[in-house]
Amino acid sequence: MDGRVLVPWQENRANAPAALRVDVYDGDSPPPADLSDVGFYVLPYGRRQATDLLSRMPRLRAVQLLTAGYEHVLDVLPPGVALYNGRGLHDASTAEHAVALILAAQRDLPRWADDQRRGLWRPHYTRSLADCRVLIVGYGSIGAAIEDRLLPFETEVVRVARRPRPDEGVHGIADLHALLPEADIVVVVAPHTPETTGLIGTTELALLRDDALVVNVGRGPVLDTGALLAEKGRVRAALDVTDPEPLPADHPLWTAPGVFVTPHVAGGSATFYPRARRFVDEQLRRWAAGEALANPVPLEPAGG
Amino acid sequence: MDGRVLVPWQENRANAPAALRVDVYDGDSPPPADLSDVGFYVLPYGRRQATDLLSRMPRLRAVQLLTAGYEHVLDVLPPGVALYNGRGLHDASTAEHAVALILAAQRDLPRWADDQRRGLWRPHYTRSLADCRVLIVGYGSIGAAIEDRLLPFETEVVRVARRPRPDEGVHGIADLHALLPEADIVVVVAPHTPETTGLIGTTELALLRDDALVVNVGRGPVLDTGALLAEKGRVRAALDVTDPEPLPADHPLWTAPGVFVTPHVAGGSATFYPRARRFVDEQLRRWAAGEALANPVPLEPAGG
Ligand SMILES: NC(=O)c1ccc[n+]([C@@H]2O[C@H](COP(=O)([O-])OP(=O)(O)OC[C@H]3O[C@@H](n4cnc5c(N)ncnc54)[C@H](OP(=O)(O)O)[C@@H]3O)[C@@H](O)[C@H]2O)c1
Ligand SMILES: NC(=O)c1ccc[n+]([C@@H]2O[C@H](COP(=O)([O-])OP(=O)(O)OC[C@H]3O[C@@H](n4cnc5c(N)ncnc54)[C@H](OP(=O)(O)O)[C@@H]3O)[C@@H](O)[C@H]2O)c1
Repeated sequence: MDGRVLVPWQENRANAPAALRVDVYDGDSPPPADLSDVGFYVLPYGRRQATDLLSRMPRLRAVQLLTAGYEHVLDVLPPGVALYNGRGLHDASTAEHAVALILAAQRDLPRWADDQRRGLWRPHYTRSLADCRVLIVGYGSIGAAIEDRLLPFETEVVRVARRPRPDEGVHGIADLHALLPEADIVVVVAPHTPETTGLIGTTELALLRDDALVVNVGRGPVLDTGALLAEKGRVRAALDVTDPEPLPADHPLWTAPGVFVTPHVAGGSATFYPRARRFVDEQLRRWAAGEALANPVPLEPAGG
Repeated sequence: MDGRVLVPWQENRANAPAALRVDVYDGDSPPPADLSDVGFYVLPYGRRQATDLLSRMPRLRAVQLLTAGYEHVLDVLPPGVALYNGRGLHDASTAEHAVALILAAQRDLPRWADDQRRGLWRPHYTRSLADCRVLIVGYGSIGAAIEDRLLPFETEVVRVARRPRPDEGVHGIADLHALLPEADIVVVVAPHTPETTGLIGTTELALLRDDALVVNVGRGPVLDTGALLAEKGRVRAALDVTDPEPLPADHPLWTAPGVFVTPHVAGGSATFYPRARRFVDEQLRRWAAGEALANPVPLEPAGG
C-alpha cells in the first residue's frame, strides 16, 4: 500500500482511509504532473486515453478497471501489475433494462408512444408478463439479476448456461432445442464467443411459439439478424444489442414488424455510478489494510 | 347450491363439480331460453347488457362480478341476492403496467421508440430505477403488488394510505407533504373519491424534487392536470389514467415535456383471463360444497 493512489472521483478521495495518499484523475481534467510514485490506479470509466498514463507509472502494482471486459488493457498492462475488473457493477443496470424491454414488448409501450405522438387514444387489450415462462440463455451474473426481478411478476424462469449445473437448476446449452418450444420469452445474455455466434439462428427461432419474444441484452452476433428478419414478425424481438452495431439508418431491423430496438444502453445508466464509487471505496479500504482486492483478473504468466 | 349456474367460459363448465348444473353465457351468444331456475350467475366481463338477464331469474341467490367496482349493478340487483366482486383479479395486470411505466420513464423508452422510427442510433446515459425511493400513494391491494415487483430492483418503497397503519409501516395521508420532498418517484393508485380529487395538485408537485416522476394508475382526477402542465417538465409524469378521459386529440398533455401517456390499459391485459377463470372455478367449488364464497360485497340492508 505504499505509493500514491489515483482514483476517478473526488468522493473516493474524501472517503479514503487516512493512511493513503490519494489523487483524482477523472479522464477529462489533466492528470497530476508527476505519476512516478503511483502504486494503484483506478482507471476512469469510458475514457480510452486513460491507459496512456500507464507507461508513466514505474512503481505501479495494481490496476482497477470499472468495466467487466479487460481485453483492451492486456496489451498495455506492464508485466507484474495485478489487474482487477468491474464485474457486477453493471448487473443492476443491465438487468433493469432487460425487464424494461420485456415489459415494453408485452405491454405495447412503443405503440402507446406512437399514438401519443399522434394524439390518439386507442386502448386495446395487451399481452402481459405474468404467467409467462422466461428462458434465460447465459444464466450468469446478469442472468441471475434478471431472474430476481422477474419472479415477483408471477413468471416461471428457466436457466440455461454453457454447462449444466443440476444442483442449481441450471440447464446446459445442449438442452436449448428441447426448451425453446415451451418458452414465451427468451432472454439472451450470453457473451460473444466463437460458440455463441449465431447461437439463436433460423433453427432456434423456428422452434419458438408464434408470438414468442426474444430479448437480446448480451451481444448482437449471438442472435442471427438475418434469421430474425426472415421470421417477418412471427416471433417478436426487443434488442439492446444488434448485429451490426450501430445500426445504419437504412437497416431493415429498424422497421421490422414486432421489433423494438434500443441503442446498446442497458449497462449505461445512473445506477452504475453509486455502485462503482462504493466499490472503489471498498477496494481502497482493502488496499490500505493490506487485504486481497476483490475481482482479480486471472492473467497468463509472462512468457507462458 | 340448488338451481342452475350460469358461467362466462366453457372452461368453467368443464371444471365444475359434477353435482352442479352449469350453462355458459359469454355475453355475446344468446343466453339459454329459460333462466327461471338460475341460482348463481357469474356475469360475463365487460358486457353491459349482461345485467338485463337478472330480471328473468326469479330463483337467483348470488351474483358474481369480475370487476372490483360494483356500483353499476346495485340498482338492478334483486333484493336478497348476495353480491360478490372481482377484487384482486386486476392486481397483477395493473401492478405490472405501473412498473412498465416507471421503467419506460427512467430508461427513456419513448425516446428510443421515436429514434427507431427515424432510424437513429443515438445512445445516451439514462436514469435508472435502482436506488430510487418510491412513494406509493394508495397502498392497498394493487399498491402492495407494485411494491412486490419494485423491491428486487434495489429500490426503497414508502407506503401511504388514507389512515396510518404503523404496525405495517404504512403512513397516513396526513404525512404526504412531509414525504414528497424525499421521493424520486410517486405512484398514485388511490381510488377516486371526494377526498382524493386533486390529491396531487400544485402544492404537492411543488414539494417534489426537480426531475421526480409521478405515475398515475389510479384515477385521472386524483392528479390535477392543470397543475402538472404548469410544471412544464420540471416534474415528469407517466399516466395510464388522465383527466379528462379519453384525452381529446388536441389536449396539451399529449405534447407536454416529460409526460408519457398510455390510454387506461393497466388493468386490461392477458393476465386477467386465467386469473378470472381460476377464480370462477374456485367459487363454483365453494358453491357446490356449500361454503361461503370469496369476495362478498357488503350491501346496505333493504330499506335501511
Ligand atoms: N447490453 C449491455 O449494455 C451489456 C452490459 C453488460 C454486459 N453485457 C453482456 O452480458 C454478458 C453476460 O454478462 P455477465 O456479467 O452475466 O457474465 P457471466 O456472469 O460471465 O455469465 C455469462 C453466462 O453466459 C454463459 N455462456 C457462456 N458461453 C455460453 C454458451 N456457449 N452457451 C450458453 N451460455 C453460455 C455462461 O455459462 P457458464 O457459467 O456455464 O460458463 C454464463 O452463465 C456479457 O458478456 C456482455 O456481453 C451487455
Ligand atoms: N389503471 C387501471 O387500469 C386500473 C385498474 C384497476 C384499478 N385501478 C384503480 O386503482 C385503485 C386502487 O385499487 P386497489 O384494488 O388497490 O384498491 P384498495 O385495495 O381498496 O386500495 C386503495 C388504497 O387507497 C387508499 N386511499 C383511499 N382514500 C385515500 C386517500 N384519501 N388518501 C390516500 N389514500 C387513500 C386506501 O387507504 P385505506 O386502506 O387507509 O383506506 C387503500 O390503501 C382503484 O380504486 C382504481 O381506481 C386502475
